[in-house]
Amino acid sequence: MAADPTATQLIEKHRPTLDQALETIRSRAYWSPHAEHPKAYGEDAAPEGKAAFEALRGTRFELDQPGTDGWAGEEISPYGIELGITYPHPDPDVLLPVMRAAIPAWRDAGPEVRAAVCLEILSRINARTHEFAHAVMHTSGQAFMMAFQAGGPHAQDRGLEAVAYAFAEQTRTPGEAPWSKPQGKRDPLELSKTFQAVPRGVALMIGCNTFPTWNGYPGLFASLATGNPVLVKPHPRAVLPLALTVRVAREVLAEAGFDPNLVALAVDRPDEGLAKILALRPEVRIIDYTGSTSFGDWLEENARQAQVYTEKAGVNTVVIDSTDDYKGMIGNLAFSLSLYSGQMCTTPQNLLIPRDGISTDAGPKTYDEVVGDLAGAVQGLLGDDARANALLGAIVNPQVAGRITAAPELGEVALASREVTHPEFPGATVRTPVMVKADGERKQWEAADTEPPFLSECFGPVSFAVAVDSTPEGVELLRRTLRDKGAMTVGAYTTSPEVERLVEDACLEECAQLSLNLTGGVYVNQTAAFSDFHGSGGNPAANAALCDTAFVANRFRTVEVRRQA
Amino acid sequence: MAADPTATQLIEKHRPTLDQALETIRSRAYWSPHAEHPKAYGEDAAPEGKAAFEALRGTRFELDQPGTDGWAGEEISPYGIELGITYPHPDPDVLLPVMRAAIPAWRDAGPEVRAAVCLEILSRINARTHEFAHAVMHTSGQAFMMAFQAGGPHAQDRGLEAVAYAFAEQTRTPGEAPWSKPQGKRDPLELSKTFQAVPRGVALMIGCNTFPTWNGYPGLFASLATGNPVLVKPHPRAVLPLALTVRVAREVLAEAGFDPNLVALAVDRPDEGLAKILALRPEVRIIDYTGSTSFGDWLEENARQAQVYTEKAGVNTVVIDSTDDYKGMIGNLAFSLSLYSGQMCTTPQNLLIPRDGISTDAGPKTYDEVVGDLAGAVQGLLGDDARANALLGAIVNPQVAGRITAAPELGEVALASREVTHPEFPGATVRTPVMVKADGERKQWEAADTEPPFLSECFGPVSFAVAVDSTPEGVELLRRTLRDKGAMTVGAYTTSPEVERLVEDACLEECAQLSLNLTGGVYVNQTAAFSDFHGSGGNPAANAALCDTAFVANRFRTVEVRRQA
Repeated sequence: MAADPTATQLIEKHRPTLDQALETIRSRAYWSPHAEHPKAYGEDAAPEGKAAFEALRGTRFELDQPGTDGWAGEEISPYGIELGITYPHPDPDVLLPVMRAAIPAWRDAGPEVRAAVCLEILSRINARTHEFAHAVMHTSGQAFMMAFQAGGPHAQDRGLEAVAYAFAEQTRTPGEAPWSKPQGKRDPLELSKTFQAVPRGVALMIGCNTFPTWNGYPGLFASLATGNPVLVKPHPRAVLPLALTVRVAREVLAEAGFDPNLVALAVDRPDEGLAKILALRPEVRIIDYTGSTSFGDWLEENARQAQVYTEKAGVNTVVIDSTDDYKGMIGNLAFSLSLYSGQMCTTPQNLLIPRDGISTDAGPKTYDEVVGDLAGAVQGLLGDDARANALLGAIVNPQVAGRITAAPELGEVALASREVTHPEFPGATVRTPVMVKADGERKQWEAADTEPPFLSECFGPVSFAVAVDSTPEGVELLRRTLRDKGAMTVGAYTTSPEVERLVEDACLEECAQLSLNLTGGVYVNQTAAFSDFHGSGGNPAANAALCDTAFVANRFRTVEVRRQA
Repeated sequence: MAADPTATQLIEKHRPTLDQALETIRSRAYWSPHAEHPKAYGEDAAPEGKAAFEALRGTRFELDQPGTDGWAGEEISPYGIELGITYPHPDPDVLLPVMRAAIPAWRDAGPEVRAAVCLEILSRINARTHEFAHAVMHTSGQAFMMAFQAGGPHAQDRGLEAVAYAFAEQTRTPGEAPWSKPQGKRDPLELSKTFQAVPRGVALMIGCNTFPTWNGYPGLFASLATGNPVLVKPHPRAVLPLALTVRVAREVLAEAGFDPNLVALAVDRPDEGLAKILALRPEVRIIDYTGSTSFGDWLEENARQAQVYTEKAGVNTVVIDSTDDYKGMIGNLAFSLSLYSGQMCTTPQNLLIPRDGISTDAGPKTYDEVVGDLAGAVQGLLGDDARANALLGAIVNPQVAGRITAAPELGEVALASREVTHPEFPGATVRTPVMVKADGERKQWEAADTEPPFLSECFGPVSFAVAVDSTPEGVELLRRTLRDKGAMTVGAYTTSPEVERLVEDACLEECAQLSLNLTGGVYVNQTAAFSDFHGSGGNPAANAALCDTAFVANRFRTVEVRRQA
């Protein structure tokens, strides 16, 4: 169906990348078409990207969207600078019907054209990774290098992964098929059949503050690749990276001969609650959301006209039983706790450590020694301000900062947070992690009417060193945590096959992703597209995984037309 | 993981069938491993099957299930005989935990063993098709040949299809994968990863009165093949076919070394509302349901802890614009309206006919001529009592019989229903279809506050010959019907490519399955497993299609364990 020459060219250009992505989601090997190193983008890319970002500040972000009834936006960077950018505010009564009207041509273009257009969008975003890095940095508070990688190539990988899953699923059934049923001596019954993927309707993607692109791209591209127009509603504090994304998408769509309104932006006025308003519109048939449990639950319960995919809060846990690389374990955990000030949905919160200590290659270690060594490792890692700034980034919003301040009320402080000054951005709020000791005795968490603080998500750089009576008791606490609170990640350190089996069984039964004995350069909070699943979709932390077939298969339906042959 | 010798043998025995099923769901060609002809089952099969059914009458149906707190069941055949069979009534507080406890071994057996066990269950059911045919006949009221085919091989096909989809999806991700990420001059980052499909929990399959096996097997086998125990809650009037299914499943599971409680039966006491009770149990994480819109909607709104797959009511429509085979069209429609007294969720209800008539190969035909010819064709088809009994079967329940009696209140009768005597079962309620004329002028259906009777599902042998102002107006009525009421099937007859496109666009936009110009031996109400989708899952008649990936992909989740390599 790729009659349009532009579409044909896009297929020729991107089909090899799509094929490699399709192969990799099956092999789960390492692969990425998006370079991780800033220098890979050419000598001029860094200054140009920064200049492009600076040029956006203090401007009106024009998108030429129908139904724009005003301008909104008041982003302030976690690094202390005002962005001063305003964005289109939509009149849903105008914009949504326009988006719906764009469906037939996009639907009839077929899965391959849609995939090629999506890959062109990603490819143009990739070419502007430096600009996106600044946009992500000054909305999420991520340090530049992390904003570059997680907000750039890694997010682009997750988008491409979603396109690959969507393409695979839409092409599983052939476009046409003959059918002939023998009837003994009589003529066979014969039909010719066609099968077409049809979209559900308008998809709403509700972005988050911390990873606007990384968490936003899977839903955005899964919906677009399956034929649905996508309305992007960013977090009010992290609009720019998604506004840039929308602009690129609209440009590519228009160039390929499609209605640019297949992707549009919707930015809140203060206290308007635009996400709630849009989520209940009858045109909206798919919603992707990353954020708080309360709003995720609200969406699941109220947006009944839509398929709702949510990533909410969880309580990530690490079981520490024993290790044959004590130094590696401590170093790995210290890094995990520090990266982006623990503001990742995958950062460990609860470290379960047997009260009587653990055995290690460096001899037995008491609970206090493990906690002390971990605290020391974090202090060492972040002792130098330049390194601390490069690793921590800035605190994304006042709520997270408040949790750091309040942490000492939750228990004895094993590691105090300190303020770090940022040399370039004096207004940045930079804080090192805080760790609190907690009692994980069974009676602390078994009773239904009392709940220790460590069983609530405390998003940000606050962790709990939870003393448990034994490793098996710790695994029971892990089960309870997974069942009632959910988790995006579980970690465990053990040299015992029995303990390994115990933890694995808990994760299989409560449906959580497990990292075992990480002591090197891979961290429990990082997942790689095409290989690792982000979340399981089977515990309360998220109702979907990034990315699997279930994430794409219900964003479209297949309409069959059969004719007498 | 197929350590058990029985499991290995089952894989050897059934892998070729599974592979053929996997190939056919991709090619959508005709195929079935289950013979349609009663004689294919051997000379003794017919008397043995009948004797087996007779031997069940008046007995207690023992299943040796834990948590059986009594016996329930009072099925009366639509052919007028009492079955007199009682079945285990469950104490959910005992049975559900036992079912949950069976999960780990079933989960760890892996997708191939589970598929092989499911195929063995289907194969043993297939061998007893004659017995099942009597059970289906005397619960659904289907005539023997239909009960044999639709309740036997066709249902078995749909079960096998679900197993194939489930297997394909669970094996899309490899069980193990190495991962190596280059780090320039440094050593690569290396991990070894395992991926395991884990079930969601107990699946509840709520059966229907008319097609206990055909509509029940997809959900049952999709859930079981993805690792979930299945609690089967049949319709109180159609227990026996599913009770036999549960018995076979339990036997095969036990022989293969698994807990037979992976499949169990739950039969209502009168007015107990057991389905509602079970649907809200926290152990129940998947629900499959076929039946009324009101209970389907209730499940979707209330069983929030579960994935809910529903097939509900719809208003199936045929657009009659023109034809080059008038006789074939009339004959095909007459058969569709008559088969199983229109008691199929796929039977056409509304025939939209232009008020000014249609053009045909037999010359122009007025609205009244088309309606009269169709009425005459039905009368001709069912004029002979023996043939009428063989085609109609019996009226499944008093509600359907009541609708036939009340039909004349809905409009001018174009075809009156008549009572047919059954020679073998004098107590059978056998009725020919009734057709009522209706005015399909736009003002009849456009206003939100008034709704003509033809816009409500009138389940059973009641159809409406709806006079529309023109074919395009008819297509508008089709759109309105699909959007607000949904449909399992849409038919259309036209010789005009423009009209064909119009109808096709309506079906693509409102997501309905379309049969065009059927004039031979394939009927709009029949779908073939492996090739046709039953329902679309995208309009109000059903939220899922039988069978596609979306039907299986969210019944399990994938748990990844990654280890430093």
